[in-house]
Amino acid sequence: MKNNYELTMNNKFIVIEGLEGAGKTSAIAQVVDVLHYQGVRDIVFTREPGGTPLAEVLRRLIKTKLIDEPVTDCAELLLLYAARVQLVELVIKPALARGAWVISDRHDLSSQAYQGGGRGIDKHLITSLRDAVLGNFYPDLTLYLDIPPAVGLARACERGKLDRLELESIAFFDRTRERYQALAAVDERIITIDANKPQSIVSSAIRERLTQWLRAQVPTTP
Amino acid sequence: MKNNYELTMNNKFIVIEGLEGAGKTSAIAQVVDVLHYQGVRDIVFTREPGGTPLAEVLRRLIKTKLIDEPVTDCAELLLLYAARVQLVELVIKPALARGAWVISDRHDLSSQAYQGGGRGIDKHLITSLRDAVLGNFYPDLTLYLDIPPAVGLARACERGKLDRLELESIAFFDRTRERYQALAAVDERIITIDANKPQSIVSSAIRERLTQWLRAQVPTTP
Repeated sequence: MKNNYELTMNNKFIVIEGLEGAGKTSAIAQVVDVLHYQGVRDIVFTREPGGTPLAEVLRRLIKTKLIDEPVTDCAELLLLYAARVQLVELVIKPALARGAWVISDRHDLSSQAYQGGGRGIDKHLITSLRDAVLGNFYPDLTLYLDIPPAVGLARACERGKLDRLELESIAFFDRTRERYQALAAVDERIITIDANKPQSIVSSAIRERLTQWLRAQVPTTP
Repeated sequence: MKNNYELTMNNKFIVIEGLEGAGKTSAIAQVVDVLHYQGVRDIVFTREPGGTPLAEVLRRLIKTKLIDEPVTDCAELLLLYAARVQLVELVIKPALARGAWVISDRHDLSSQAYQGGGRGIDKHLITSLRDAVLGNFYPDLTLYLDIPPAVGLARACERGKLDRLELESIAFFDRTRERYQALAAVDERIITIDANKPQSIVSSAIRERLTQWLRAQVPTTP
């Protein structure tokens, strides 16, 4: 038999992470392409914050100046986790339970990097919150697209108007990137992709690393 | 000098708690009356969830079926704390800092009673969340109006349409009341008022207990 992993492995939850302008949308297209090639057909896409009607309302409250009131760092963190719990319980877990693959544009690692690294919220508080609300639920694989903030922000600027988070200072994104890198370095479920390269090279790297990872997930016959 | 406590004691943060229909609104009127009699003029009123524009949006998300999506118990808890953090940081602390007294219709004890007792969320999770986001910030005094759920709900029904929380089963409110009672029994900052009495008697009890408490707060001269 050929590359039909769907027949030989369980469905997975794959997350794409990285700073604004890192190329997450292109990366998702590559992941889908690889999965399709491997015979995977049932794929559910989500994004964070968002992905359910309530979570999308929370996304707008967090990311835009919908309400003329400063959002405290702590409230922002709690809203992000409220949105995440809704998404995980109402969309991601049911999709995984029925056998679909799930691909998400951002997940918990973003909170750890942006709120923990960027905003400087105590990392133990974030970890406790994560553990309390998500328990032992983790993505099977996270592809972290690593890029210098200046490069990512230049790309994001070309796309149009930046949102509230994207208007933070370069120092904020430096801290966020450092936290991403530190977390990726110690977690074998996170693969770092050097995204500061021409897109064709980044795409090839994503396809190659993902294909390797998928091969490693196929149970070996006894 | 007579009853002008404002000159001899610091301003305080006073919370009114209890089940739906317990008589919180009437109790607030009694508290204000007592404070006015004691010479207090600068009083800020808040309610939870709510009290800031963002927190009021979260209140609507929590308490009404604004969005056709079940709100998970965990997301509800996180939204309540997000609203509370906004209110504490943007309204209550600034008001206390400038010398105002603050009276709130509900505060943290509601989450412990409703989400902890009623919904059955682990009480250590709620306490950890409280400690993480509010630190050592507590009300100076909480007046807990104790009432059997059936009596309170009958009163709430007379007022008109019940909201999502108010539509919970009697068993839910029994668990909530039990948690309220248990917490009040071990916290000297909480005064329990028997609210299952004619309103004139409840009002007298509130005035009497509050006046006693205020007297006890006046620093004794050396």
